[in-house]
Amino acid sequence: MDHWIERAEKVIERCREIACFTDEPGHITRTFLSPATREVHAYLRRWMEELGLAVRVDAAGNLRGLRAGLNPHDPILYLGSHIDTVPHAGAFDGVLGVVMAIALVEALENRGVRFGIEVLAFSEEEGVRFGVPFLGSRALAGTAAELLSLADAQGLTVADAVREFGLDPARLPEAAMSGSVLGYLEFHIEQGPVLESLDLPLGIVESIAGQSRFEMVFEGRANHAGTTPVALRRDALAGAAEWISRVEREACTTPDLRATVGSLDVQPGASNVIPGRVCATLDVRHTSDEVRHRAITTLLDSATQVAERRGLEVTWAQRLDQPATPMHPTMIAAMERAVARAGFPVHRMASGAGHDAMIMAAKCPAAMLFVRSPGGLSHHPEETVLPEDVAAALAAGFRFLEEVEALGA
Amino acid sequence: MDHWIERAEKVIERCREIACFTDEPGHITRTFLSPATREVHAYLRRWMEELGLAVRVDAAGNLRGLRAGLNPHDPILYLGSHIDTVPHAGAFDGVLGVVMAIALVEALENRGVRFGIEVLAFSEEEGVRFGVPFLGSRALAGTAAELLSLADAQGLTVADAVREFGLDPARLPEAAMSGSVLGYLEFHIEQGPVLESLDLPLGIVESIAGQSRFEMVFEGRANHAGTTPVALRRDALAGAAEWISRVEREACTTPDLRATVGSLDVQPGASNVIPGRVCATLDVRHTSDEVRHRAITTLLDSATQVAERRGLEVTWAQRLDQPATPMHPTMIAAMERAVARAGFPVHRMASGAGHDAMIMAAKCPAAMLFVRSPGGLSHHPEETVLPEDVAAALAAGFRFLEEVEALGA
Repeated sequence: MDHWIERAEKVIERCREIACFTDEPGHITRTFLSPATREVHAYLRRWMEELGLAVRVDAAGNLRGLRAGLNPHDPILYLGSHIDTVPHAGAFDGVLGVVMAIALVEALENRGVRFGIEVLAFSEEEGVRFGVPFLGSRALAGTAAELLSLADAQGLTVADAVREFGLDPARLPEAAMSGSVLGYLEFHIEQGPVLESLDLPLGIVESIAGQSRFEMVFEGRANHAGTTPVALRRDALAGAAEWISRVEREACTTPDLRATVGSLDVQPGASNVIPGRVCATLDVRHTSDEVRHRAITTLLDSATQVAERRGLEVTWAQRLDQPATPMHPTMIAAMERAVARAGFPVHRMASGAGHDAMIMAAKCPAAMLFVRSPGGLSHHPEETVLPEDVAAALAAGFRFLEEVEALGA
Repeated sequence: MDHWIERAEKVIERCREIACFTDEPGHITRTFLSPATREVHAYLRRWMEELGLAVRVDAAGNLRGLRAGLNPHDPILYLGSHIDTVPHAGAFDGVLGVVMAIALVEALENRGVRFGIEVLAFSEEEGVRFGVPFLGSRALAGTAAELLSLADAQGLTVADAVREFGLDPARLPEAAMSGSVLGYLEFHIEQGPVLESLDLPLGIVESIAGQSRFEMVFEGRANHAGTTPVALRRDALAGAAEWISRVEREACTTPDLRATVGSLDVQPGASNVIPGRVCATLDVRHTSDEVRHRAITTLLDSATQVAERRGLEVTWAQRLDQPATPMHPTMIAAMERAVARAGFPVHRMASGAGHDAMIMAAKCPAAMLFVRSPGGLSHHPEETVLPEDVAAALAAGFRFLEEVEALGA
């Protein structure tokens, strides 16, 4: 194990170095193809090239490093995760999976294996800049082209951002998976409290919860806060607040439902003006698609009721409808053997968070290995990992590569 | 009256021209000493200098134009209002009072009067940029110096803004009222539905409601929206939403109370992150200071209760505690005679909105004349005035100058 602990400490050190590349000094914030992305690319490219990988950036801004197999026509195993972050993020969400992928290639040293490995550092998974997540992995799944015309808060489109980064959106089709693909493996922090509560370092994901995202707009009438009696107001924020309480209640009364209003924009936004317009996001998740869809119907109905009673108008746009996604049984079984051979307890679990593995699973056998999140903390500056857990994941990952090779033999 | 209608139409035209000077193209938005302020100054200065006024800008950024009386030591009557706006404002709030003041001076033509008139275009009344209103009139009242170190959202202080505009904050004391002052008169749109409901063009303000402003911070814990069960969340937005509903309920159940949450900032503000921190403003007004203070106690207690039950922390800072302010009896009486002589019904009323006249009233006899607001609309792009109402106000204002001269005789 000492061997893996040393590599794990190096992995953590690299994650912390990458955290210094940020769009917002003092915080960790990296959105799709922002200037800080270029710095991450340079950092990872240098390391991958030292290891002899053939490195390129595809038209979706994914950084990719290829380690050829023993034969040029050997199938490919993808290893990766994403390098974008939410605003004010921690250092490990996404980045850990990319750095561990390269660390595994490093651990292979000169050992020849009967498949190629392509490391993937996805450009976008969090959905922060354009409101739609998975831009990076959707390029590999061949479903990113329809997103090129989405605009960010400044009115720049995905295509503009790609061009501004020096890439050609017309070449997006070349980013898609092609040839023979063995599968996709993603290491990721759990981002929740389950493994910690069970005192386990690792969790093998068997299914990823489906998720929906909506953008809601409550429209009332801006007016003077001092002269307009409450009864005559059409206060968009008071309406949104009532609805947010209903969203919370729905999540409280539906087992395992996650429903979150994460962002709210209040216009015009002055202390002495009644809010005339509120834009809110809604994020709903469940491992049962049926439960999720039923909750959404209830919440949209609630919004309509609240708005009608208050003389507001409410509209919404669906930004995501991602079904629950099982991981591939063969890959799960291979990971179970790998974890057991590495000497750790085998534990299967659901993922409440969405991951690139959801997108990749539509096109190839996918697997995920969760690493315990101390305090269950994620999307937070204090998010962290324990060196012994990362070492366990690396040891299991190495065995997984052997299992995959055995499958192909 | 034809004479006054023509002048009124010119007044409205000028207000609409000034509305083109904005910090935000497509909207009317002018905050304290923003670049658009410079354009308004140039526009008004040109007009005032054509009328022979001695024009200067004081260290608070107030544009001032002096028309001397018959004797150099004649007392001064101040006439004015403010030229800043809320975000996405209408064209008349504040600006109307400044333009009408100059229009009245214009209407005097060469007529000598036994007092000087100083037109005041206050730089700041709305409290948007620094969270504290009345920067302009507080300079005349001699209470602005304590605000110089307030910082805006970019970390620039009032003193920085003054310096950046080419002025010297050290000269603020020179902006204060000095010498013999007759009083202050402010024309302003009503910004409410009362005059319209009574079918009256003008309202003579007898008292301005007191107001309090607070900045509230709800602090929870940011975390992943997909993996954190509702029961384990410390969602700052869900807490703020519950409190906003309580604020609304308090306003509904307390006669004539105005209580408004006008602005809300949600951090980190991504659709898939539980909000960790929410900053909200609270604006509370009533003509009874006792009722207002009792309501504030209730609302702050509510915030504490909501936060405690949810494991949040709530803190607040009071930004304003402005007592209710009666206008001066002699000035009210003079305005009543003026309105009657001009041929319009005399109607006294309270102002639910704060005005520079509140600040000026602490140092000199103050009066306000309200002009009907069609639709009761204000702090809104569609805010407007009727030419016949502005004509009525100009006619009454002209008679008011005669009444004031008679008082001094």
